[in-house]
Amino acid sequence: MKPSRRRIELAWTVGFSRDSRFSPEEFVPATVPGAVQLDWARARRWPLPEYAPLKFTASDNVVVATDYAWMEEVFWLYRTRLDFERPRRGQRLFLVIGGVDYKWEVRLNGRTLHRYEGMFAPFEADLTSRARPGDLLEVLVWPAPRWRRLSAESALPLHFCKPPFSYGWDFHPRLVPLGIWQDAFLEIRPACHLKSTETLYELSEKLDRADTRLEVVLNQAGPGLLRWRVLDPQGRRVIDREARLRCTRILLRATIERPQLWWPNGQGAAALYRSTTELLDGKGNRIDTQTVRVGFRRIRLVPHELNWNDPDIAGFPVTRNKPPITFEVNGRRTFAKGSNWVSPDLFPGRIRDRTLRRLLDLARTSHFNLLRCWGGAPVPKDSLYEMCDERGLMVWQEFPLACGRYEGTPDDLRVLDRESRSIIRRLRSHPSLALWCGGNELFNAWSRMTDQDLALRLLHRNCYALDRERPFLMTSPLFGWAHGGYQFRLANGQEVFDYFAKSRCTGYTEFGVPAPAGVDLLRRIIPVDELFPPRPGTQWEARHAFGAWSAAKEVWLDLPCAEHYFGPAKNLEQVVERGQLLQSEGLKCIFEEARRQKPVCSIALNWCFNEPWPTAANNSLVSWPASPKPGLKAVAAALRPTLASLRIPKFSWKAGETFTGELFLLNDAPRAIPAGVIEVYLVNGRVERLLLAWEHPGTAAGANLQGPGLRCKLGDLGPSLFVVALRVQDHPAWNSVYTLHCACSDRYKWRKA
Amino acid sequence: MKPSRRRIELAWTVGFSRDSRFSPEEFVPATVPGAVQLDWARARRWPLPEYAPLKFTASDNVVVATDYAWMEEVFWLYRTRLDFERPRRGQRLFLVIGGVDYKWEVRLNGRTLHRYEGMFAPFEADLTSRARPGDLLEVLVWPAPRWRRLSAESALPLHFCKPPFSYGWDFHPRLVPLGIWQDAFLEIRPACHLKSTETLYELSEKLDRADTRLEVVLNQAGPGLLRWRVLDPQGRRVIDREARLRCTRILLRATIERPQLWWPNGQGAAALYRSTTELLDGKGNRIDTQTVRVGFRRIRLVPHELNWNDPDIAGFPVTRNKPPITFEVNGRRTFAKGSNWVSPDLFPGRIRDRTLRRLLDLARTSHFNLLRCWGGAPVPKDSLYEMCDERGLMVWQEFPLACGRYEGTPDDLRVLDRESRSIIRRLRSHPSLALWCGGNELFNAWSRMTDQDLALRLLHRNCYALDRERPFLMTSPLFGWAHGGYQFRLANGQEVFDYFAKSRCTGYTEFGVPAPAGVDLLRRIIPVDELFPPRPGTQWEARHAFGAWSAAKEVWLDLPCAEHYFGPAKNLEQVVERGQLLQSEGLKCIFEEARRQKPVCSIALNWCFNEPWPTAANNSLVSWPASPKPGLKAVAAALRPTLASLRIPKFSWKAGETFTGELFLLNDAPRAIPAGVIEVYLVNGRVERLLLAWEHPGTAAGANLQGPGLRCKLGDLGPSLFVVALRVQDHPAWNSVYTLHCACSDRYKWRKA
Repeated sequence: MKPSRRRIELAWTVGFSRDSRFSPEEFVPATVPGAVQLDWARARRWPLPEYAPLKFTASDNVVVATDYAWMEEVFWLYRTRLDFERPRRGQRLFLVIGGVDYKWEVRLNGRTLHRYEGMFAPFEADLTSRARPGDLLEVLVWPAPRWRRLSAESALPLHFCKPPFSYGWDFHPRLVPLGIWQDAFLEIRPACHLKSTETLYELSEKLDRADTRLEVVLNQAGPGLLRWRVLDPQGRRVIDREARLRCTRILLRATIERPQLWWPNGQGAAALYRSTTELLDGKGNRIDTQTVRVGFRRIRLVPHELNWNDPDIAGFPVTRNKPPITFEVNGRRTFAKGSNWVSPDLFPGRIRDRTLRRLLDLARTSHFNLLRCWGGAPVPKDSLYEMCDERGLMVWQEFPLACGRYEGTPDDLRVLDRESRSIIRRLRSHPSLALWCGGNELFNAWSRMTDQDLALRLLHRNCYALDRERPFLMTSPLFGWAHGGYQFRLANGQEVFDYFAKSRCTGYTEFGVPAPAGVDLLRRIIPVDELFPPRPGTQWEARHAFGAWSAAKEVWLDLPCAEHYFGPAKNLEQVVERGQLLQSEGLKCIFEEARRQKPVCSIALNWCFNEPWPTAANNSLVSWPASPKPGLKAVAAALRPTLASLRIPKFSWKAGETFTGELFLLNDAPRAIPAGVIEVYLVNGRVERLLLAWEHPGTAAGANLQGPGLRCKLGDLGPSLFVVALRVQDHPAWNSVYTLHCACSDRYKWRKA
Repeated sequence: MKPSRRRIELAWTVGFSRDSRFSPEEFVPATVPGAVQLDWARARRWPLPEYAPLKFTASDNVVVATDYAWMEEVFWLYRTRLDFERPRRGQRLFLVIGGVDYKWEVRLNGRTLHRYEGMFAPFEADLTSRARPGDLLEVLVWPAPRWRRLSAESALPLHFCKPPFSYGWDFHPRLVPLGIWQDAFLEIRPACHLKSTETLYELSEKLDRADTRLEVVLNQAGPGLLRWRVLDPQGRRVIDREARLRCTRILLRATIERPQLWWPNGQGAAALYRSTTELLDGKGNRIDTQTVRVGFRRIRLVPHELNWNDPDIAGFPVTRNKPPITFEVNGRRTFAKGSNWVSPDLFPGRIRDRTLRRLLDLARTSHFNLLRCWGGAPVPKDSLYEMCDERGLMVWQEFPLACGRYEGTPDDLRVLDRESRSIIRRLRSHPSLALWCGGNELFNAWSRMTDQDLALRLLHRNCYALDRERPFLMTSPLFGWAHGGYQFRLANGQEVFDYFAKSRCTGYTEFGVPAPAGVDLLRRIIPVDELFPPRPGTQWEARHAFGAWSAAKEVWLDLPCAEHYFGPAKNLEQVVERGQLLQSEGLKCIFEEARRQKPVCSIALNWCFNEPWPTAANNSLVSWPASPKPGLKAVAAALRPTLASLRIPKFSWKAGETFTGELFLLNDAPRAIPAGVIEVYLVNGRVERLLLAWEHPGTAAGANLQGPGLRCKLGDLGPSLFVVALRVQDHPAWNSVYTLHCACSDRYKWRKA
């Protein structure tokens, strides 16, 4: 059968002018989707910014990519001559523009077709009677909205919904992308075609019935038939319905009994049905078709089991109980674990599916079940959601507001209204989409928004109106859960081992321990003469190892912390190895501690998973574009469904000191664990000493078990690192290993563990 | 000029049946507005329930009025024969039913005109061509929805939006009103008439311009003219506009420069404009008119001044900052003070304007600027809002949800959607309406609702859609502010003097100290043989002195507390006098402490102002219907715009002990206070001793001033009470007096202070 739709690609060029009334002096070839900065750099044969030494200025905690700074401030004009074969009778010619960043206008032969502010809402127009081959199609892009991040406490008002991270963040420079970042093309379509199809459902309370509905919008009514077929994950047909085309909006309903449920990673299969809508003409020929996948699941946010007797808020005067942040998936309370997804590129237009696939495969094999798509970055393209649907990765999706005061003038609200509606409609049928959130850290001192801000009230309204069964949060964090810290050892000397064990939050949606990138990447992004020792003012600073965030000059490359334990590093390899060890052990500690505090704590997401460009040091687990640091392996170990875990009060120990710990069997898996034995060993080089053997009684599905405390006097610990190993008889996959530090007399002695 | 509308009252009768298919066996005269219970009791010559000894059963902390219990469970049928003069040409006959409690149906000659669930949305129908004189009009009322309050921790699901307090609360019995509670009448109207008019506005950021608009809906278009006139508070015309009647919806806009602002009580005049809409026919005759009052003001909820540096949430891991609860009125941060309005009658249909006026005059003269219309009770009739508009009393309006788990089934949401839209549209043009709140204590253990509950998300959506400039809160309390305690001395022995000084809330929207009613009222509601000593199982319990709330049998009549200080009472007068003294001193302490903590604390509303029926003991300041207890005078003293105030750590002192205190000058007034002298005296009978003289430097408008601490050894204190008096030179109106207790050796000795 002939394809019913035919896509015609367009060859774009792009140029700039300082004044939109004048045409650009020069046009260069443009890649669509992409960004004007990349096109210009390519035409000028600049090295692409990610690996080149960066010309930068640093002020107010923001690194500015100076070569690119002017590009924010000019008008960019995309141009193409339409080249297409005239549509035949019964066909129409459509222009489709998936999204342009940020304020833009579409012109055909100089006449405006569309003007819009916002990067997310697509544009589509029927050009059949308007366009001829050879016509001039243009997309004019305005300068980026002006905004300056002043400081961590700035709380500058925001008057746009362009992702704020482009204006400079603690892991990449200010470099504000502009241009056509989604597909833009012509399409020949049947005169009567599917404008949109959505397969939505309501699950019965007992999850044993799915009242499913197909909502179809046609561009025009016509003679013919609509056919709706749904196949279950094994390919069996469970719905087969037809309807006459009487009007342009068609609603079909059908019930699926005992649907196979979509489960997040670690809890069961991510079952996906296929729902296909076919449009048949009067003769029964298929003229258009759309297929979507459907996952049946119910995700609710509920309070943790002990919430209503919370001792924190007992007694008079009494405040409210804490807001719910425990994920209940298909009726099962599920510890949510994973990381913060911060966009795999600072140019969202050039993110490719293969990069997403590599990153999401890493997330899945690291036992993640939740990614927080952080509000600083753009809302991702559909393919991320499709891949998360397949992998059982739930997505916490934030609207693109972060760390600013979005004032909510009538104009602001108009933009946010249209953009948020477009985002909600585009994503709401994905089973992986777990919840909507207004944005990042908006109720903190550095943003100064409140529950009364109209921007957030608008988002709440739109989410209720368009997608009311999905949880909505105004921001992260809310009362009772928390963000931070971001270092192995805080300025006050406290270690993660200490302050996370004392904390009693219901969830941690951000926390981090930084690490340097691998030696290979560092050699690509830092000139050889600057490589060692790392210093501010060099490419180390351009790449955010220094001055990224705090007034203190070292942050992500935490040399003082490494030196506190190990003394000054002798070479680059030591800098990397020590930093990566601290990240590994620090994150393992926090993730396991959060899990030990289940059910009060029900969520742990470290900051951050990936990064939008190569940094020299960062809290990320994966260097740009998709190279894991050793910390990812440590996190994967801490997130195994079942494992033995030891609460250890500190990192550094002395010979002769009494070592203490508390033993746990952590179990997030949906299966009971039988009785067994867990042994704790002290491993010092080749010498092993059994400290404790715990005969545990087993535990129920999804339930932890607390074991005995451990106290024993430490003998000689030898070199500067030693290991505590937990071994589970008959289940070596549940073993755990902790590398600890020996504060031996010669504290500057370092040896690889 | 002849009145353009003519109202025709209806003579109603009412009867009941157990089955709606059968007609009642007997009809009795009905008072409309009213309640079926009152009609039936009147017809049977029962004493009205409020003063009669109450037949009751008590179980699960609820007193049930047994004589009335069956009335909840039957169908009630109102009947009337239409008696009217046929409308002339150019006139129409309308039926207007303002509200029926709770599920109801209107029938004309046996045919259903309207069926509805909910007491708030009115009904109106054009009967011109449908009704003839002599026709039978009926209103059928369904049995009350079933609900049982089990206990303080019950959290039973709620499936209605009938005010829950009728089902029994800690200050009145279970007695669930039913029937026509708003006006219901016929009206002759011009064929073309005003269906609704609203005068709304947007104030400029600087408050110097009001973009005012008149929104008119006509029942039909017609030839003629609309005239809009607005008079300022002095009667000067500031808007005078006319428009042709082209369609049924008319929008007129006009700008008022430098509008006189509406200020809450104590902050300025409650300036009200009058907006009159006149409908003129083709010949220029006025055929319909509506006048509303408009108050120009801007009320926002903002965080307190120190919020962004709140030490409570410093350090990692960091949670959100506290939600805003400081009232900013016309740009001025205003300490909100007042009380909880709990409905002046358990039968809302018989509340008369004169009762409202008396109560609101008491509120105003007691320096209140805010009343919280608590979610347990019905949303009040319009006249309450009109009176609050005039008196500068802001209203915190809750939707009728309280202390229950409103499950939000699709049916529930449909009812709540219609009811809340009706409430919002009815009240949104009142300047006194300060904010919307979803209901009372919904996020506490005894309700178990959360931010994710669809019922509250729906209310948020509707408030945003219909009234987005007005603040919205999901419930009270939220994070950072608090409810309770409700006794002078808690079960753990702590006094209000102690635990309120230690508390650091941003607002107190409920707290209380109970007191018995006056002796006169007690003699009316309690048989003489039960009067003294008060005992459970008697009318004291029916009137909630005992077992009102807690498992402990005494609560609102807190005899153990009074005996702790004063020993057993000898007679009824002593019971009353002691209880009322503790209420006065306790509430004075809390209100002043909340004010001393300004700006962190910005709101203090005691539980409760009035009561819906006569109680023997209650936290109320005013006994039913409008008789103030002495506590009201004490509260009025604590709420004076400017006063000297002393933080005293405890109520009871011994001779020889060191008395301590901290002196303050509290100032909520919008004017600066000049330097002056405040003296502190110990008054013991006729002996006065100067403890301290503070030469204070004066303070700015709306700003408090903290003075010196006070330490002095107490000499002989004489009888069981003594007084500390604060005297402000040249400003005796700012003086304060505290009555304290002397724990003398003979602690059972009591003398009137």
